[in-house]
This record gives sequence, structure tokens and C-alpha cells, in this order.
Amino acid sequence: MPELRQDPVTKKWVVIAIERSKRPFDFPVRQENIKGGNCPFCVGNEDKTPPEIMAFREEGTEPDTPGWWVRVVPNKFPALDPKLNEAPEQNFYLKMPGAGVHEVLIESPDHDSSLDKHSSHQVREIFKAWRARYQALINREPLKYVQIFKNEGSIAGASLSHPHSQLIATPLVPPVIAEELKGTQEYYGDKGKCLYCDMISQELREKARIAVENDDFLSFCPFASRFPFETWIMPKWHQPGFEMIDDGMLSSLSEIVQKTVQKITGTLNNPPYNIVLHAAPAGYNDVAFYHWHLEILPRLTIVAGFEWGTGIIINPTPPEAAAEYLRNYDNEKNAEKERLSWQQIH
Amino acid sequence: MPELRQDPVTKKWVVIAIERSKRPFDFPVRQENIKGGNCPFCVGNEDKTPPEIMAFREEGTEPDTPGWWVRVVPNKFPALDPKLNEAPEQNFYLKMPGAGVHEVLIESPDHDSSLDKHSSHQVREIFKAWRARYQALINREPLKYVQIFKNEGSIAGASLSHPHSQLIATPLVPPVIAEELKGTQEYYGDKGKCLYCDMISQELREKARIAVENDDFLSFCPFASRFPFETWIMPKWHQPGFEMIDDGMLSSLSEIVQKTVQKITGTLNNPPYNIVLHAAPAGYNDVAFYHWHLEILPRLTIVAGFEWGTGIIINPTPPEAAAEYLRNYDNEKNAEKERLSWQQIH
Repeated sequence: MPELRQDPVTKKWVVIAIERSKRPFDFPVRQENIKGGNCPFCVGNEDKTPPEIMAFREEGTEPDTPGWWVRVVPNKFPALDPKLNEAPEQNFYLKMPGAGVHEVLIESPDHDSSLDKHSSHQVREIFKAWRARYQALINREPLKYVQIFKNEGSIAGASLSHPHSQLIATPLVPPVIAEELKGTQEYYGDKGKCLYCDMISQELREKARIAVENDDFLSFCPFASRFPFETWIMPKWHQPGFEMIDDGMLSSLSEIVQKTVQKITGTLNNPPYNIVLHAAPAGYNDVAFYHWHLEILPRLTIVAGFEWGTGIIINPTPPEAAAEYLRNYDNEKNAEKERLSWQQIH
Repeated sequence: MPELRQDPVTKKWVVIAIERSKRPFDFPVRQENIKGGNCPFCVGNEDKTPPEIMAFREEGTEPDTPGWWVRVVPNKFPALDPKLNEAPEQNFYLKMPGAGVHEVLIESPDHDSSLDKHSSHQVREIFKAWRARYQALINREPLKYVQIFKNEGSIAGASLSHPHSQLIATPLVPPVIAEELKGTQEYYGDKGKCLYCDMISQELREKARIAVENDDFLSFCPFASRFPFETWIMPKWHQPGFEMIDDGMLSSLSEIVQKTVQKITGTLNNPPYNIVLHAAPAGYNDVAFYHWHLEILPRLTIVAGFEWGTGIIINPTPPEAAAEYLRNYDNEKNAEKERLSWQQIH
């Protein structure tokens, strides 16, 4: 049974995921590029996952059979478990049952595709699935937060290479989000404005850190980037919760995410990366001070002793330099090159 | 010139280390096992580093020549630079010059030795050098904190394999330490006691998480371990600042660190790891609520999208299980085995 344990000093929680328990000789976890019919996320292997929660599939096809193009299933080795509802336990230390939800969003039936290569329609369908699962869980008790994320490449934490993202819903507001709420609430108290809205105005004024832009979103390398080529994608209009995004904005989001990811994978030669949703917790979806966004974190540097000791991250690439590389990357030309080499192989 | 930039939302600082600047094709940094006379930390190559700051060396030998057994030099590519003293700059964002100190402590003249293999005398000499540099810098303006750390293995961030640790002194109290001060100060306000002292009593009562123990120190896997086999080494007696450690305790510390590291490297087959000092910032060395300690962080798991998004870390190994493995590891027997195979090679 997974446990949530609190550090008595920092008050931070960790998940002790006993279901995923590792003995000394079980390390390290490497990315398994399981193919040849053995990948549990491939078409035809629907019985290798727990029964599907939802899928976008051809009319008339049965759940857990082929015919889908996006499929959501429970994680087979969940970090948190929805069945738990015991009370917290405190002696000197505080712990509580790891109650929560852990799902996998299989992003494509094609084992070898990826976010930069999918059709634009497929990318929209992926984000539709993100929104559907987000909406289904954000107000469900005892959940307080829904974290959707994507790990691309083994260095970024992917244990299977078939394109997928994940959702973990937690029974508490995570510390990163609590910190963001605190910072933006203080700013709102001071200035009566959303700090993220002001950040967008500042980025549009300075221009130096912008990577891509469309009608609804700005994609930029943040001023205090922790990672080389870190890129945030933020709605230009105030919107606290991800559940509020409508179909028009969802199309816009799909377009800018794919363009940004193409620029990053093209410029950096398919680096490992994480994509992380930051959105308002349950009950905060109409606040004036928070603003949802996506963070793309290329994993080219190593978080080492100094960073763990201090919480200060060393980034060798100024965001202004990164943004310039990304702006100068020509998506059209490279898509054409990519298409031609694809035709040669197939 | 390195810059410190503040995230306007979380108020966290990052170092934009322009001296270490990376273009897209400079990634990733891999561990270079430079040998054959080219390792800048090897004996005879003293001219490949900046001039030494201090060394423990044979009487009569000159600085920057052979004859040393521990040698401290400035980092050739410093993340922070002591010469900077410009004022902070604020428009919408806040930045300040990256003023600070970055040193390398070369732990042995022997390229192939390591913390688990050094003689116990050598380990004591390393910690003497840690203390000497710590004492020299902790009260120097404008420094507020001295972070000593060790990265072992490329996955843990070591870019050179010759045994070494590093010191980075910062012009601000880092967020991790600020958080620890806040948590321990609150506890002290509540209970009138040091939280870390109480943690030691609790661990001695429960016993399940203890790895090793000697007269002055406890080595244990913390209740809310973030990493499999994470181990903290803490003085049994209240002591806020690392500069206060006397020769007797320094011997005790060397002994328990080496024993713990031997258990970790033996049990986990030479895993990458970080060792991180947590100690009171400048001006806090006599407070009743803080307590210095070392954290050993084996790097067997990957910090992925969920962790970056939430700040909640998933650890698949319960600390009680890890501690049991470490306790059961027989240092004596394995040292004997190690000694025999070493004789076979040489």
C-alpha cells in the first residue's frame, strides 16, 4: 500500500510507493523499448493493460480491442491508489495512506510516432483526452490536484518508449503549486493583477525570450529558466484552471505545443524532456491570481549535489540564447526534410 | 559573468552560469575519465588547475607541485565569481551578479581511489580540508552560506572521475536551508527543543531506520526518504554550525561516513551518489534550533515530470527496508574481499 510521508522539517511529502518496491539489485530502471508484439501500449495488446477508462475509438469497436487512436488506462503499478481511505497517523512522524489516481494516456497506436511527428489532428485528440480526464477528476473527493505530465526518453523518466503521458491526482495541494499560489496571491494583493498576465505583457514587450506565438498562447523561455531550453506555454488570456479550456483554445494549444516541441527536438537532436501541466487546484478555478500553463523541461543537465543541497539550480544556457535558437529553427523546412526521409524508409 | 535570477512567482533563484555556457551541440556533459597524464587533478598536473588555495603536503614541497595528499583549487569554470559586486537590478524581473566562491577539493593523489577505499587517515584529512575551507569562508562578506558537496559518478553530476568534492559559497541563504530554518524554528517555538535532536531520540527508540552508529554520530535512512537508500549522518549532540566540529568529532565523522559509504557502494554495486552538507548559515552558528548534518543521496531513480510538477518525490524503497540492507552489510568481510582482489590486480 503506497504511503505519503511528511518530512517533519520541510513539511514536504514523499510517496513511499511500496507497490513499485525495489530491492538493491532491481536498479537502475532503464527504458525498455519493447516491440515485436510485446509493448503493452501497442494495438492488439489491449489485454496487457488494466481495462480502459476511456478511449477515442472507431464507432462500433468494443472497449479493450483495436480501433482506438487515444486510450486511457489505469497505471499497472500505481504510485497512488484510489481505494485507500485510512486516517493519517502521527507519532513523532506524520504519514497517511497514498490515496489518489494514477492513469496512463496512450497517445497513439503507432509505437514509433512522437509528439513532434503526430498529425496535428492526433495532437488535438491527445489534449482532448487530457482535458476529459482532468475534468473527470479535478472535483472528485478526496483529490485536491490533478498532475498531468509527459516523460520523453529514459533520462527524463520514461520506462516505456511507446508515446504516452501520465496523470497522477493527489489528495493534497503539492508544494510546487502551493508556492505558486502564495507568490501570485501576494502579487495580487500588492498590485491587483495576475502575475502571470503581467509576465506575458513583459515578455511581449522584451521579445528576447519568445520562441513561438499564436493568437491564444505564448511560448517562451522563462527569465529564471532552471534548464537549458526550458520553455513555458501560457494562455495569453487569464485562465486559472485547465478544465476551462474550450475547443478553440485546445486547437491553438495543440498547435503551439507541437511547434515548440519540434523546435526543441530539432535544435537539440531529440533530447529527453518532461512536459508538466501547472493548473489551479480543486476549488481555485475562478481565482483572479492564478494562471495555468505548461512547462517543457529538456533534461540536458544533471541536478547534482549543489542543487539538492541548496535548491538553487545552475543553468549554463541563458534563456535569451535558447529562445533565439528556437525562433531561428525553421519548422516548415525541417518538416519537409523529415517527411522525405520518412518516405525513403517506408 | 554569472547571474543570479529570481523566479518572480516562487522567489527561487537560479544561477545563469554564462562562463559555463552551452550551445545546443555541447550537450550532454558526460563523465570524462581522463587518464594517462591528462587528468588535471592528478599528481604532476598541478599546472592544469588554477593555483592552489591550500593543500596538505609534505614539508618542504612548494605549492602547485607534487607532495600533497589533499589539494584545494578554485574551480576553473566557476558557477559563481568572487570578483562581482554590482548592485541587484530590477525591472519586472530581479537579478543580481553571481558573486560567490567555487572551489574544488581534490581528495586524493590517487586517480582510482574513492571514499570507500581511501585509508581512514586519508578520509580524516579530507574532512579536515572541508572544515578548513568552511571556517575560512563562512564569515566572509558578502557570503551567507557555504555549500560543500560531492558528486560521485556521472549520473550524479561528476564531470571528472578523479576523487574530489566541491564548495560553492552563495551570497544568499539557499531556499532549502531557509525552509529547514523555518521548520526547525517553528518546532522550537512550540516545544522548546531542537527538532533534529528529537529526531535522533526517535530514531534511537525505533531503531528500524538506523544504518550505523558510533559515539558521536547516527547514520540512518530518514522517515521521509526521497531516494532509495538515502542516508543522513547527524551528530548526536546539538551542534548548529559545521565550523564548530573539533578534532575528536572529525575523526568520528570520517569513520562513520566511510563505513556508511562502504555499505551503500557495497550493497548497491557502486551507485552514483551525492553527499551534501547541511549546516547553519553565517550568523546562525549558536542557535538552539538548527543542527548540521550530511545527506547521502544515491541516485538510482529518476526525478521525472511528476516530481518537477509537484515537488512530491516518489521513492520505491521504504527506508526501513534500505536500513536493514545497510545494517546487514558486513564491512569487515567485504573489506577483506576487496583487499584481496586489489592485491591480485597490483
